[in-house]
Amino acid sequence: MSNDQIPGYTMGEDSVQEASISMEEFEQLKQSVMFTEEDEEYLQEAGDILESQIDDILDVWYGFVADHDFLVYYFSQPDGEPIDEYLDRVRDRFGQWIRDTCDTPYDEAWLDYQFEIARRHHRTKKNQTDDVDAVPNIDLRYVIAFIYPITATIREFLDDGEHDSDKVDAMYHAWFKSVVLQVTLWSYPYVHDGDW
Amino acid sequence: MSNDQIPGYTMGEDSVQEASISMEEFEQLKQSVMFTEEDEEYLQEAGDILESQIDDILDVWYGFVADHDFLVYYFSQPDGEPIDEYLDRVRDRFGQWIRDTCDTPYDEAWLDYQFEIARRHHRTKKNQTDDVDAVPNIDLRYVIAFIYPITATIREFLDDGEHDSDKVDAMYHAWFKSVVLQVTLWSYPYVHDGDW
Ligand code: HEM
Ligand code: HEM
Repeated sequence: MSNDQIPGYTMGEDSVQEASISMEEFEQLKQSVMFTEEDEEYLQEAGDILESQIDDILDVWYGFVADHDFLVYYFSQPDGEPIDEYLDRVRDRFGQWIRDTCDTPYDEAWLDYQFEIARRHHRTKKNQTDDVDAVPNIDLRYVIAFIYPITATIREFLDDGEHDSDKVDAMYHAWFKSVVLQVTLWSYPYVHDGDW
Repeated sequence: MSNDQIPGYTMGEDSVQEASISMEEFEQLKQSVMFTEEDEEYLQEAGDILESQIDDILDVWYGFVADHDFLVYYFSQPDGEPIDEYLDRVRDRFGQWIRDTCDTPYDEAWLDYQFEIARRHHRTKKNQTDDVDAVPNIDLRYVIAFIYPITATIREFLDDGEHDSDKVDAMYHAWFKSVVLQVTLWSYPYVHDGDW
């Protein structure tokens, strides 16, 4: 599926506001998660391995959400009805996110879009992209908490039997760093001015 | 070193305010990082392995901070001078934190103290415990980012040559979940009312 066929996916479009930090500040954040050029290469390799498995990965993640009412809640109307169209549309963008996470190096368009994803989780912009009437905000605590499942569950998909375990580990750690990096950026709109 | 000899360490004391969430909400957070009773047991075993290595672990972590001026900054006066006494006192509490992280299950006193650690990183209460005049706030982005180094660097210490790699992995993952869980709780005072 090419990008412009994914409803609501707008990386690189003019409608996306500029990032709230400079590329220099972004460099420091990368250093604080120990993210290096080697990680960029490992992520590219990971992307090749994951591409054909994207649907299976999304099944695992969506299954995890589906198993917990207090998580399905965020895809639901305030009265409790999950919105299937919302789940489906976000799923396509989530698939593209796997590709984008592996499509290093991260440039300004990528960084800008992280702040857009942040706003879409936060009440600033949640629900607008898909024009739905779901609950207004995803509580930040679950976004941070998801660092664990979104990291840990990827390892089995990276381990495709064609790479030795050191290589799988290196790709896995590059993924782990990237997820922490992105969730860090996504916390921005939730935080008091000057505290982030 | 017993707890009451660690300056500023106050877990279980009356001075610590009650947690901002109930034990039931805490349960949901544990579920969202996939934290189970098995993880509690693995952490206890990890504690036995780490106890004698606490100083070496802290050398690694403090070394990482020391290598980055933009991180040492948070232990420094606004004009840029690092405060050695502050670094030392926090180091002792950080050592105790390793023990507490492994001392499962987590009870109400533990949960209450997480919100205290949160306030101590945030401008709500930073610097008060050690009566120092360092910069007033630790920016949340670095606290979340540290999930990576604080997790990844522990593995070599868990791998003491006496446990098979599956067991080391299990302890490592329990540690990873706990770090994510705690950083999630520590984000609380940074976040807009109702968005957390
Ligand atoms: C590591 C944590 C997470 C990752 C990697 C992640 C990933 C994503 C991605 C890639 C998108 C689509 C972005 C776009 O529009 O292009 C998205 C949107 C969304 N996510 Fe997450 N997410 C995370 C945490 C959560 C949590 C904890 C929930 C709550 C159960 C959640 C619920 C949603 C919802 C409801 C949307 C649609 C937001 C909108 O209205 O535009 N996400 N997420
Ligand atoms: C996973 C992330 C982190 C962990 C596990 C951690 C752990 C701790 C612990 C256990 C304490 C002592 C708590 C107590 O008073 O009992 C502490 C305090 C402190 N930490 Fe962190 N920390 C993290 C992130 C950071 C970052 C990114 C910085 C900035 C470089 C930082 C700087 C400090 C400072 C300055 C204090 C003293 C705060 C005060 O004035 O009371 N920490 N940290």
